Amino acid sequence: MPKLSERGSEMPASPIRKLVPYAEAAKKRGVKVYHLNIGQPDIKTPEFAMEVLRNTSIKTAEYTHSAGNESYRKGLAEYYKNIGIDVDFNDILVTTGGSEAIIFAFLVCLNPGDEVIIPEPFYTNYNGFAIQAGVKIVPIRSSIEEDFALPAISEFEKLINPRTKAIMVCNPNNPTGYLYSKSELKQLGDLVLKHKLFLFADEVYREFCYDGLEHFSAMQLEGLEENAVLFDSVSKRYSECGVRIGALVSRNKNIMQSALKYAQARLSPPLFGQIVGEASLQVGKDYFEEVYDEYISRRNYVISALNKIPGVYAPMPKGAFYTILSLPVKDAEHFCIWLLNEYQYENETVMFAPASGFYSSPDAGKNEVRIAYVLKIEDLKRSVLILEKALESYKKIF
Amino acid sequence: MPKLSERGSEMPASPIRKLVPYAEAAKKRGVKVYHLNIGQPDIKTPEFAMEVLRNTSIKTAEYTHSAGNESYRKGLAEYYKNIGIDVDFNDILVTTGGSEAIIFAFLVCLNPGDEVIIPEPFYTNYNGFAIQAGVKIVPIRSSIEEDFALPAISEFEKLINPRTKAIMVCNPNNPTGYLYSKSELKQLGDLVLKHKLFLFADEVYREFCYDGLEHFSAMQLEGLEENAVLFDSVSKRYSECGVRIGALVSRNKNIMQSALKYAQARLSPPLFGQIVGEASLQVGKDYFEEVYDEYISRRNYVISALNKIPGVYAPMPKGAFYTILSLPVKDAEHFCIWLLNEYQYENETVMFAPASGFYSSPDAGKNEVRIAYVLKIEDLKRSVLILEKALESYKKIF
Repeated sequence: MPKLSERGSEMPASPIRKLVPYAEAAKKRGVKVYHLNIGQPDIKTPEFAMEVLRNTSIKTAEYTHSAGNESYRKGLAEYYKNIGIDVDFNDILVTTGGSEAIIFAFLVCLNPGDEVIIPEPFYTNYNGFAIQAGVKIVPIRSSIEEDFALPAISEFEKLINPRTKAIMVCNPNNPTGYLYSKSELKQLGDLVLKHKLFLFADEVYREFCYDGLEHFSAMQLEGLEENAVLFDSVSKRYSECGVRIGALVSRNKNIMQSALKYAQARLSPPLFGQIVGEASLQVGKDYFEEVYDEYISRRNYVISALNKIPGVYAPMPKGAFYTILSLPVKDAEHFCIWLLNEYQYENETVMFAPASGFYSSPDAGKNEVRIAYVLKIEDLKRSVLILEKALESYKKIF
Repeated sequence: MPKLSERGSEMPASPIRKLVPYAEAAKKRGVKVYHLNIGQPDIKTPEFAMEVLRNTSIKTAEYTHSAGNESYRKGLAEYYKNIGIDVDFNDILVTTGGSEAIIFAFLVCLNPGDEVIIPEPFYTNYNGFAIQAGVKIVPIRSSIEEDFALPAISEFEKLINPRTKAIMVCNPNNPTGYLYSKSELKQLGDLVLKHKLFLFADEVYREFCYDGLEHFSAMQLEGLEENAVLFDSVSKRYSECGVRIGALVSRNKNIMQSALKYAQARLSPPLFGQIVGEASLQVGKDYFEEVYDEYISRRNYVISALNKIPGVYAPMPKGAFYTILSLPVKDAEHFCIWLLNEYQYENETVMFAPASGFYSSPDAGKNEVRIAYVLKIEDLKRSVLILEKALESYKKIF
């Protein structure tokens, strides 16, 4: 029997997915599970964009340009200009989800074995993309005590070595909800210039910034034309996770030229997703305001309610729709499994993502979980109540 | 300025795309260009499938299961059973085009630096996928003199070494149009069993087999459950290139489990493409018969007409919609550029793909070009006439 590759047999399963069988078993037992573990928003895709898709007159579903339809790229360039990011449509490559943008950047900018520094906790799928591209993620710790602010630049410098090629941030951050400030971005900009590194910025949650704070993009940093690379996606912005449309954006012509060659090998990003994405550029401010108001009220409710539970601390997220909370338990994964496997309150329970999976350092985040506040307030209320009751019971047993 | 990676700066551009600027310049001069260089069929996507898309009642375009919608995978399993490939829906992973299926298989089965043997000429984008996965393609020569039949097994054995992990065939073949026989497949099956290798089979042109010949799949080989891996796509079958839906199919559970982890990292294949692909499973035989009749008449016309041109030899393709022809010129790439740059016949010219780009060995296929006979007969007639006239002129100049 032929042997699989090491990256085949050793690719770690997502720590969140480890819990899925327990959730399924709970459902089979008739227990209702509130999913605070995933970021699938229940917000509707803009009806206008769906209408455009329904009215398509396409007879042959042909390949599009490998970089994406030019009309869509020009529309995207307008969108970016309107939010203060001055790019040309040639600086934009339409990708199959934000995922592909990250993979292309890893391939084009890093040799196998090269390193990218990422503040942890970070989005777990970065691990998969790094394994796929053969590059090494070097974590730098951000901590719940500082509400997950950017680690000190001196800490970054300790990690930089000749194999370091890039620093990557997710802003606003999944999983922490932290929004990096203009000043933090500037510090990162100076750092990458000093060490001739790339600055990768995953800004797919850009539209979700709260409390009057404005998003400052890595693409707005001056003098970083050759260094800054933006990853984007329509998934969360317009609640279009399934269309698989993202973008790789950079003013560095060499990056764009090389990425295009990888894009050409896979021929074309999805045609129908581009149609929906392009139509979504037309949605008005009212769409975002409605979404915004919904998330703000969910956030305000859930963070305040969580912090009232004894022993629980949840920083106030300034962006995205996640937060990481610390729980009065030793092993949050054990608690999460117990919640699904053994616990129920009035025949209901709740599913969290153990935060250890978002840390690369062993033993980090052991008492933390990530929540996505994408459920309606009524369900969030129920979830917080269940958590409170569950913690009381858990304390008595373990 | 930070430096790109080697695989970023050295990724070769597709040899076909090298000619695109010349074609664009010709069009700017007002010269009509017949595109025999690309495989974008002018056949319509099944109207029924487009209707299903137009009638979608989806409100939120959510992620699908990372392995693809279960209903689609079950439908695909039925489709395979009907063509003699007995697989369960768990043996199927829906991918973003056939491209992603190949990349996943390379990642899961081969370590960086491992080798896959592929008969050349082969589909050029295999090179891009190999660079992306860090694996090495070892070419084995098939020749126009033998109409691109499978090279002798003894030739394969000369190339097998401890780093060899797989043999890959495209059947029916792009770019040669060759259809591997059951006997050739069995020889390959014995070979991979003997050396404990994987057998990768790209069978996206399965529906296009001519002259009463039946397609025999690598998945039909007995005793190869752990070795055989199928790459599939709806792109050519239903003329749905833009939907980006393919499949990775294997009975090897370890491969499927590992590939799923890569699939989970990129979250989901395209939602709308899956809707169109699943609906297309319902199209009747009449769709394929119509398409089939169209291709047969195109093939019969073009191959016979080409072989009447002095010095031209085109093997009769038994499948797909490509053939490679040898021309009475020393450097087919020079001829192809000249056709676009300097030649015109009644204000028209024709674009071919120089075949050297489909060979991995240097200097192979220098006097050959690939054509795709995806144009209507009227255009093919014009193209053959232009080629004949052009060869006469070219001979006088060079």
